[in-house]
Amino acid sequence: MPEFLELKTIQEALKLFFDHLPEAAPQTEEVRLAAALGRVLAEDIVSREPLPGFTRSTVDGFAVRSRDTHGASETLPMYLPLAGEVPMGKAPGFALQAHQAARIHTGGMLPEGADAVVMLEMCQEVRAGEIEVYRAVAAGENILARGEDIEAGETVLPAGKSIRPVEIAGLAALGYERVRVFAAPALGILSSGDEVIPIEQTPGIGQVRDVNSHALAALVSASGGIPVLYGIIPDRQETLEERLAQALDECQGVIITAGSSASTRDLTADAIRRMGEPGVLVHGVNVKPGKPTILGVCRGKPVVGLPGNPVSALVIAGLFIQPLVRRLAGETYKKPQAVIQARISSNVPSQAGREDFFPVILKKDGLCLLAEPIFYKSNLIFNLARADGLAHIPADATGLAAGEDVEVIPL
Amino acid sequence: MPEFLELKTIQEALKLFFDHLPEAAPQTEEVRLAAALGRVLAEDIVSREPLPGFTRSTVDGFAVRSRDTHGASETLPMYLPLAGEVPMGKAPGFALQAHQAARIHTGGMLPEGADAVVMLEMCQEVRAGEIEVYRAVAAGENILARGEDIEAGETVLPAGKSIRPVEIAGLAALGYERVRVFAAPALGILSSGDEVIPIEQTPGIGQVRDVNSHALAALVSASGGIPVLYGIIPDRQETLEERLAQALDECQGVIITAGSSASTRDLTADAIRRMGEPGVLVHGVNVKPGKPTILGVCRGKPVVGLPGNPVSALVIAGLFIQPLVRRLAGETYKKPQAVIQARISSNVPSQAGREDFFPVILKKDGLCLLAEPIFYKSNLIFNLARADGLAHIPADATGLAAGEDVEVIPL
Repeated sequence: MPEFLELKTIQEALKLFFDHLPEAAPQTEEVRLAAALGRVLAEDIVSREPLPGFTRSTVDGFAVRSRDTHGASETLPMYLPLAGEVPMGKAPGFALQAHQAARIHTGGMLPEGADAVVMLEMCQEVRAGEIEVYRAVAAGENILARGEDIEAGETVLPAGKSIRPVEIAGLAALGYERVRVFAAPALGILSSGDEVIPIEQTPGIGQVRDVNSHALAALVSASGGIPVLYGIIPDRQETLEERLAQALDECQGVIITAGSSASTRDLTADAIRRMGEPGVLVHGVNVKPGKPTILGVCRGKPVVGLPGNPVSALVIAGLFIQPLVRRLAGETYKKPQAVIQARISSNVPSQAGREDFFPVILKKDGLCLLAEPIFYKSNLIFNLARADGLAHIPADATGLAAGEDVEVIPL
Repeated sequence: MPEFLELKTIQEALKLFFDHLPEAAPQTEEVRLAAALGRVLAEDIVSREPLPGFTRSTVDGFAVRSRDTHGASETLPMYLPLAGEVPMGKAPGFALQAHQAARIHTGGMLPEGADAVVMLEMCQEVRAGEIEVYRAVAAGENILARGEDIEAGETVLPAGKSIRPVEIAGLAALGYERVRVFAAPALGILSSGDEVIPIEQTPGIGQVRDVNSHALAALVSASGGIPVLYGIIPDRQETLEERLAQALDECQGVIITAGSSASTRDLTADAIRRMGEPGVLVHGVNVKPGKPTILGVCRGKPVVGLPGNPVSALVIAGLFIQPLVRRLAGETYKKPQAVIQARISSNVPSQAGREDFFPVILKKDGLCLLAEPIFYKSNLIFNLARADGLAHIPADATGLAAGEDVEVIPL
């Protein structure tokens, strides 16, 4: 297949790629709650008990039988004698009789007979052991009934959901000290190219440091995967295939950052084809930067060939590697992507039919944000590091005029 | 100071709080590049060499002296004999004479004499050792000059910037195998309340599990801090003060999740006051949920008193603890917050002058996102866990009408 014969859109490419990945769920492991952050639930979480476990007050005030307050107003308060005070962390130890109230704190358990709480501000203790109530309450007011949050046996968090602090809260509320999560996927990273040297070496003439292995490892980590570095591979078909086969054995997916020239990109595509069916699925995506992206599946595992230049590699990694890692991590519940709305500060041309991403600096402009494009040659990694995000020009636009709205994806 | 006498806005509260924190930078440590992700640079990164270190081609094609191509067109091509091929990863080993070209690959070093590269697609090899050039190139076209990205001695990344994958790329490009970062701040977490029990226990009557310690620990971790759990503290002034003093000694900041009742919140405020000047700075913020928030500084360290109910605690932690942890981590370069733009699906009332946050589920609606409010009592943690984000009603609005735009902060 000649290179770029058929450029796919990002969406087409991602769909074709994911459609060829096996559905099988990853391995699972049990971790302590504190280690579960950012992982993906491997089991439905079912409540073993109702939450709350007892009917409780949501305010500081007085527990009452609501009907006893009906008609109460500031001019005509109801007088209710106090039956007692509900202790925190314990059962009340008494029941409420008709025309009685009981002092209660937020979180305290409602005494038997009570069905509402009057807020402290709506009462006054006129004498020891008696209150005036200035406002009627309805049944259920200012209380949280047993099981109102969750009934016992209810599925509260589905398998496939990633665990944010709020899911940690939910798990803690149900008493989960340990939780079963999917194993974090290992992603092999191969850097190919005769001109590429380890970063600790000083580049000689014609050489460049292996930026991509480290940048991609960071992106894989940030996405919830485990990067496995296979180092730098010279531009020889045999060596590349050996190392790719090894990485496919040892990892759940492989990323190859191609050498920068077209010939080494062909090496990558050929190596992927030789690893097995279906092999190369996408060779060329209609996006700038990153057109020469390769997406393939061999032996049931994903292999991605990224452009050699670090800026393209990072942009494409954001588009394809990040969702790939989340999928390999077992995530099935998709979160909407958060973007930053801004206005573009100057005209930016784009080719119709192609999606463009370019780095911008965001500046406050009154209440709005202004996105200033960093005009750059795509090899300049520090222009990307200066950026707050990547502005996106959709495929159907031929560019942006200064002042137009633009969506910026945080870097 | 009576509670809530003077409610502050979120911005006022944050400013007052941060203005009282000492300016002193945190401790630093050197870490390997792979461990630097998410940390904050403690030193300016200065380039020790120009980048790129040699003038290189950005395309596959032929290196030329640009003036030799002037006038070239499809109908009147220029004929240039080939002086050789530039090997990858090595110096060319030859110079370009007038009216010569040299085969070069992307990333290859320009031979002496050449000042531009003609793309492969604009040439044809008519016979072995000679090409036709169909298009003129300008000096500098399709090349990246030595030092064009970065000059030697240039500050490329400032101290105080947090390290994303793109900064890892920049550091790798400059050969930084190790980098000096600020020490991650330890945040002590105290959970107070007689009704609170460890999560592994089954709540008896009137008891609740210690959700907040775990949820806040997760949020502190996600923000780049190290949570230190001091456990559950009964509602006794003396014990609370002892434990707070210990946490202040051992950590860079302390979070107390107050018991749920007003009396235990007063305990928290009193304890903070007794730890030293200036003590309590903010007691009450004009926000829902989370009004009873306490912000203080004692012994030069921040102390935050959060509401006991887990939903309020998490919302307030997002507003105050997250920026606090980033500040204690040494971050001085602020990133704009990414939000999700959506339309609200139903009317939501709000009190003017107060900022409201409420959980929403986001659904695709054509090209837009629809934010469906989860109507809830503030204690229901699983309603928050079901949410994709928190919708925000600004202080000057009295609510949102169905169909209005709303900003949603990802959870």
